[in-house]
Amino acid sequence: MLNHADSAADAATADPLRDDDGAIRETFVEQVGAAIESADADALRSLVGDLHEADVGDLIEALDPELRPRLIRLMGADFDFTALVEVDDTVREEILDELPPQAVADGVRELDSDDAVYILEDLPADEQAEILEQLPSLDRVALTRSLQYPEDSAGRRMQSEYVAVPPSWTVGHTIDYLRENEELPERFFEIYVVDADYRFLGAVALDVLLRTRRPTRVAELMDAGRRRVRATADQEEVARLFERYNLIALPVVDDQDRLAGVVTVDDVVDVIEEEAEKDIKALGGVAGDEELSDSVWTIARGRFNWLLVNLATAFLASAVLGLFEGELQKMVALAVLAPIVASQGGNAATQTMTVAVRALATRELHDGNMARIVLRELLVGLLNGAAFAVITGVAAAAWFRAPDLGLVIGLAMVCNLVAAALGGILVPLVVDRFRLDPAVSSGVFVTTITDVVGFFSFLGIATIWFGLH
Amino acid sequence: MLNHADSAADAATADPLRDDDGAIRETFVEQVGAAIESADADALRSLVGDLHEADVGDLIEALDPELRPRLIRLMGADFDFTALVEVDDTVREEILDELPPQAVADGVRELDSDDAVYILEDLPADEQAEILEQLPSLDRVALTRSLQYPEDSAGRRMQSEYVAVPPSWTVGHTIDYLRENEELPERFFEIYVVDADYRFLGAVALDVLLRTRRPTRVAELMDAGRRRVRATADQEEVARLFERYNLIALPVVDDQDRLAGVVTVDDVVDVIEEEAEKDIKALGGVAGDEELSDSVWTIARGRFNWLLVNLATAFLASAVLGLFEGELQKMVALAVLAPIVASQGGNAATQTMTVAVRALATRELHDGNMARIVLRELLVGLLNGAAFAVITGVAAAAWFRAPDLGLVIGLAMVCNLVAAALGGILVPLVVDRFRLDPAVSSGVFVTTITDVVGFFSFLGIATIWFGLH
Repeated sequence: MLNHADSAADAATADPLRDDDGAIRETFVEQVGAAIESADADALRSLVGDLHEADVGDLIEALDPELRPRLIRLMGADFDFTALVEVDDTVREEILDELPPQAVADGVRELDSDDAVYILEDLPADEQAEILEQLPSLDRVALTRSLQYPEDSAGRRMQSEYVAVPPSWTVGHTIDYLRENEELPERFFEIYVVDADYRFLGAVALDVLLRTRRPTRVAELMDAGRRRVRATADQEEVARLFERYNLIALPVVDDQDRLAGVVTVDDVVDVIEEEAEKDIKALGGVAGDEELSDSVWTIARGRFNWLLVNLATAFLASAVLGLFEGELQKMVALAVLAPIVASQGGNAATQTMTVAVRALATRELHDGNMARIVLRELLVGLLNGAAFAVITGVAAAAWFRAPDLGLVIGLAMVCNLVAAALGGILVPLVVDRFRLDPAVSSGVFVTTITDVVGFFSFLGIATIWFGLH
Repeated sequence: MLNHADSAADAATADPLRDDDGAIRETFVEQVGAAIESADADALRSLVGDLHEADVGDLIEALDPELRPRLIRLMGADFDFTALVEVDDTVREEILDELPPQAVADGVRELDSDDAVYILEDLPADEQAEILEQLPSLDRVALTRSLQYPEDSAGRRMQSEYVAVPPSWTVGHTIDYLRENEELPERFFEIYVVDADYRFLGAVALDVLLRTRRPTRVAELMDAGRRRVRATADQEEVARLFERYNLIALPVVDDQDRLAGVVTVDDVVDVIEEEAEKDIKALGGVAGDEELSDSVWTIARGRFNWLLVNLATAFLASAVLGLFEGELQKMVALAVLAPIVASQGGNAATQTMTVAVRALATRELHDGNMARIVLRELLVGLLNGAAFAVITGVAAAAWFRAPDLGLVIGLAMVCNLVAAALGGILVPLVVDRFRLDPAVSSGVFVTTITDVVGFFSFLGIATIWFGLH
């Protein structure tokens, strides 16, 4: 029995496919690359054929771009297109561009409808139509309907394959049906109960079905208060429902409350990851769709816009410094210290803004607690403003041997940290009120506020105190 | 039948509990508050008794802090402690502090073991012991074992309730067992196959069990290559496995490969959200454990540390300005323009750093593509450096009517944007190599680099060009 434990320990420490950090091993990528280069389909199949689609996806990303479509062509019908759902959008588009539409249609036909939609939705309309045409009509109808729902909606993320039974069926009848039916979805977690018009009546979890004796009717078992979403609902709303109510699957209904499909939790995990990633990038000034596989040119152009906006605000802040040119010349210590006030304000504002943006995204910040949170941020700004007024004041006074200067920078610090607190919380709230994404646009406004207030308060107070005019 | 559709439409637009943004309605919170104030247990039960635990959790957070423990005491045995899993840590700790240990023990006894651990793990050791003592011995043993695993490990997140059967059982035998057994977990998605020593052999999804005829043995059905994790594995590793392989549940084994419990996807959704949140906050200079319900004092103190570090780096950057005091006095335009160079560098570096930190967190950035990504960032820095050299140069030259000044700031801009690119990518990589969290500590180093390089290159080049010495 020791053998057993040993092999498990080995499996945990020495995965032939992935290193300790979970990245695909270089040696494996090289073996696959060599098999493709020498067009050795058998070797390739024996290396890749049995891998999980997620591993194939990561492998494709690790391969030289030029080898990727060749891998798919060499594998032929043995290539599972689900792997393409797992790769970056850019990588997928490049690969699909290289493959003949017939090959794509053949691959898409084997997919669950949600994966098929995921692959089709980013293709140009004409390619989409060409591929849809080559699919069996039932698949085509389901995919076309999904694609008609808005981008990032429940209708796009749902799969049209599900198990639905009438309320009159018993547990026994349902289990027999599952045993005999060959056309079931590949994986399912719940059974839905619908009326003759396919209107949603309730859901039965599989564990409930399994615990119940055969004569019981599903109508008695089903959870009739079960949450559902409209197909037009945004995927973020869907994700919130999954998180809040610990769901595994969520039925999707059309505007007549008819069952259209089901969103499963594995897709929602990706949505949550994607939405968090978008927020992180937006706060860092990076477009949500920038991917690690993008070209230098695409990335540089994408980031340029944000930097250009920032440059404009930097000039605005410098214009404030320019107003005090005479004073700066008379007292050059002001020029040396001014960036400290601005920088400290910028960082305090970023803290507040980060918390506000995140709390808005997760709906933790709402009308009910807004006033309390704004007040709290103001008090935090005052407290830290006072603390840093003292620290900065003492340091500046010691550096330039001028106690007055310490007093002036201290006062400016309080002003700017209060401005930072108010800007950091109010800007995201206002941006959100206008139904814009606070993660994307708050940063520019907020740092402009702290730069301008920082420079203006410090140099303004200095001008008055030292009578520099 | 129109009624049906109408009522669904109404349900979607007018939820009595939550407003359109998903926040608990103020009026409902007030009703509950009034019931607690007047100690009307019946009214309270009729309002709260049938709510989902997540709704009760959000309701508790929306209530006045002083009313929260009173709600629980009034509800008595009708209060489901699962709701306490859904609230902020701070809120939970405050509530548990107010309740007698006996009441907490009674509540914890009803919970799944993963929820019980979640509530117990943050309590002081003596309170933990006191509560554990009052639990039935089987529960106590399971919880004590979970609590012995490291914080944020699979062992802490797993529930000890699962369904396990021997490999010799048939589908029919298993289904009969499920129908007759009263002690099953509240919810389960898979059945595990174990040997006589409880060593993990494989998993059978419930849909597979339902599709298969009664005489088939589970040993033939089970997925023997099914992934499992050690109880000591970090929850982030667990989350990556769920995401990568689209799992619903993941068996947790001890160091002998014996089944210890199971982590379910609903807990992992929370982990993913939590980890993304930590990264977002860390990048914004906020501690990962800061919560919306924290007090002003707690928050101000938490943010103070980060601001203090930033203040030190701001003084360092200003010291660079101080080196050029004479030059600044001779040419005050330099003082006005210097912050632009620093700010543009800081923003470009933040873009690169954000992408790097995120790609490290999701394991997309690894040894295999590191060199390519560093080179790419360098080229992006050069491209945008050149672009902003021209724009800033022209603007500065026009503003101060000094073409030379445009040339100088342009050169400095290229230097600083290249420094930003290298700092933005290399700092997180080095921090990660030292096994520290790059989200937490990269920002300070990176902006120090761009401030110092920005000031030094601009003023240095200006000093040489204009012969200011």
